[in-house]
Amino acid sequence: MSLIVHKYGGTSMGSTERIKNVAKRVAKWHAAGRRMVVVPSAMAGETNRLIGLAREIQEQPDARELDMIAATGEQVSVGLLAMALKSLGVDAVSYAGWQVPVRTDAAYTKARIESIDASRVNADLAAGRVVIVTGFQGVDPEGNITTLGRGGSDTSAVAMAAALGADECLIYTDVDGVYTTDPRIVPEACRLEKVTVEEMLEMASLGSKVLQIRAVEFAGKYKVRTRVLSSLTSPDIPLDEEAQSGTLITFEEDQSMEKAAISGIAFNRDEAKITVSRVPDRPGIAYQILGPVADANIDVDMIIQNASEAGMTDFSFTVHRNEYQKALAVLDARVKDAIQAGAITGDLKIAKVSVVGMGMRSHVGIASLMFRTLSEEGINIQMISTSEIKISVIIEDKYMELAVRALHKSFGLDHQDA
Amino acid sequence: MSLIVHKYGGTSMGSTERIKNVAKRVAKWHAAGRRMVVVPSAMAGETNRLIGLAREIQEQPDARELDMIAATGEQVSVGLLAMALKSLGVDAVSYAGWQVPVRTDAAYTKARIESIDASRVNADLAAGRVVIVTGFQGVDPEGNITTLGRGGSDTSAVAMAAALGADECLIYTDVDGVYTTDPRIVPEACRLEKVTVEEMLEMASLGSKVLQIRAVEFAGKYKVRTRVLSSLTSPDIPLDEEAQSGTLITFEEDQSMEKAAISGIAFNRDEAKITVSRVPDRPGIAYQILGPVADANIDVDMIIQNASEAGMTDFSFTVHRNEYQKALAVLDARVKDAIQAGAITGDLKIAKVSVVGMGMRSHVGIASLMFRTLSEEGINIQMISTSEIKISVIIEDKYMELAVRALHKSFGLDHQDA
Repeated sequence: MSLIVHKYGGTSMGSTERIKNVAKRVAKWHAAGRRMVVVPSAMAGETNRLIGLAREIQEQPDARELDMIAATGEQVSVGLLAMALKSLGVDAVSYAGWQVPVRTDAAYTKARIESIDASRVNADLAAGRVVIVTGFQGVDPEGNITTLGRGGSDTSAVAMAAALGADECLIYTDVDGVYTTDPRIVPEACRLEKVTVEEMLEMASLGSKVLQIRAVEFAGKYKVRTRVLSSLTSPDIPLDEEAQSGTLITFEEDQSMEKAAISGIAFNRDEAKITVSRVPDRPGIAYQILGPVADANIDVDMIIQNASEAGMTDFSFTVHRNEYQKALAVLDARVKDAIQAGAITGDLKIAKVSVVGMGMRSHVGIASLMFRTLSEEGINIQMISTSEIKISVIIEDKYMELAVRALHKSFGLDHQDA
Repeated sequence: MSLIVHKYGGTSMGSTERIKNVAKRVAKWHAAGRRMVVVPSAMAGETNRLIGLAREIQEQPDARELDMIAATGEQVSVGLLAMALKSLGVDAVSYAGWQVPVRTDAAYTKARIESIDASRVNADLAAGRVVIVTGFQGVDPEGNITTLGRGGSDTSAVAMAAALGADECLIYTDVDGVYTTDPRIVPEACRLEKVTVEEMLEMASLGSKVLQIRAVEFAGKYKVRTRVLSSLTSPDIPLDEEAQSGTLITFEEDQSMEKAAISGIAFNRDEAKITVSRVPDRPGIAYQILGPVADANIDVDMIIQNASEAGMTDFSFTVHRNEYQKALAVLDARVKDAIQAGAITGDLKIAKVSVVGMGMRSHVGIASLMFRTLSEEGINIQMISTSEIKISVIIEDKYMELAVRALHKSFGLDHQDA
């Protein structure tokens, strides 16, 4: 009898009426003979309400106490969902993270799962119960409540599926799968039936926010068959249809000849570019530039250093726009004179556009098609960075939508080509 | 260094501003060298909100899941209060019942505390921390969350004080102590500086709702020095003054000669009277009447059977007004013919008035003074019931206030006599 984990987000759990709909959907799977574990998020708005209360008390809330408070949102959700299932005649039981237990480290507000004890849940499943477990939280070695940070319920669900050896983990969300790019920008964008973990990781980190990146990592590491699908369909649609919908995240490259070389176009406009010019090209220079930036807790994304010319080089990197001013200040104060840089310049008006695909590894010409497409649209490329399965470029931000649409078409991802 | 437990009700915790005031008060006690444990209730309205959500899902919410949900209200409170103390520079830590742990039986929604492990709390106290523990809840032997039922936070606080061997348990509430009777009815009512556990039990069960009755029982059983006092005073009043305010619940009768024979007048108008007339006076008849009533889960308060006359007797008892119709229906269906009773009659328009006092045991004439006072006011007595330290009468409900005022005066409880 197969074992399935369902995860429902805050919108799906947003009201008692919606919770009843979630219960109907779970009951359908249970009635079809599946052993069911469900991981719901807090009701939409609840986590923000709780954090708001905490902030009224302390501007920078104490992390341990914040977790104590924030964890209650999911505890209410699991109780309500268990009730909703019982009122449908389905035996169900709810657990908070510490009751399973879901063991984490002690990094409050951003804890990492260390292990999950499956025995209690397995006993309930063997007794025919639906087991409902809080997402987003666990318990540290000292018995303190911890939370995994925003979006952590995706990670909880995949980790639970891994610990139980579940056949599939279904992440119900408000989109119906993973798309070749954002349909709001490219109406011809297609839903992908399958995407590999590696592609999903590149898509997620590049700005497609369908599934939390740590959840994807877990799915890859523990080989959890994970599917992203819509929670907006009627709970009464046939199970077979529902089970095939959405996007399946797989572990192996699709071997079929028809497989497109790339699976999607990702983009974001959240970054800013900083260039340190005419830097002496000597060992340790990258560390001398980025060390102070890291010390200031500023995350760096792309890092590019061009070849040297006459012993001098240019060093560029991107940071989140919110940290642009802070990064410039750090460079001015601690780096510029120390390394005798020629100039430090920056640009907020940039966008990053990437083509992502496992097929890229075995197909030549992806880069040249990408650059030719952008050139034909008259879009200048400011920076280029590549990995095994993606090519990213930095362009002027006003061209972002144009670039995404042109690339989507030239790589054959539009509906008519699919 | 003395150890003090504070308990704050939902009104005191009703907003983040009020929580900051609670923190100021606790910080004052901590600064004065007391080791402090604090037991707060959920923020006012929160428990009702949570139960409301549960009822939207299930009209009769599943008891285990209801506890899972309801317990979150106090969990939020302890986290917020710990933050408020930290922002005042006081080291504090919060615990849910299961983290202490507070062990209870498995009677969801009305669990009873079985034991409290003091070791974790003691370690924090030794480290100079204020320890904040959720009221109202615990954990059963299987690791399920349980709640103690409405008002259970009083019981939690007194039980925690007992487990820790605290010097005193202070119950902060929205009245400033226990009064000789309700000041809304008798403006001359006086606050009692002291009251015995036994008197408090009679007062509480008779309708003075200052302190939960189970908390009083705990205080008596474990000899916890407990004080009821106001949370509406400024948190900045001198500690010595605050520590002497309110009403202290003691374990021994005051031996001083001046001690009044009775300490208060209690009353309630929530009951209805039922009389089964001309019942054969034979063994087992009381059980034949009340057995079916108890089977229907109807609580009975006073029970009176008069002496027999010609082998027949009248049997009367009181029930809550809400259960009056149900009780009559049970008697009609299952009792009347079975015991060949003459008639079954009832009366909703009754009130119970009681005089309560330890001094009653050593003073003759309490009953006669009570009956004379009522007679002088022209109030007819319908039923009489007595215990070691109280005399209760049932009268027509419209005379209740008059009776309370007259008794308060004749027993010397008015301000000018005090």
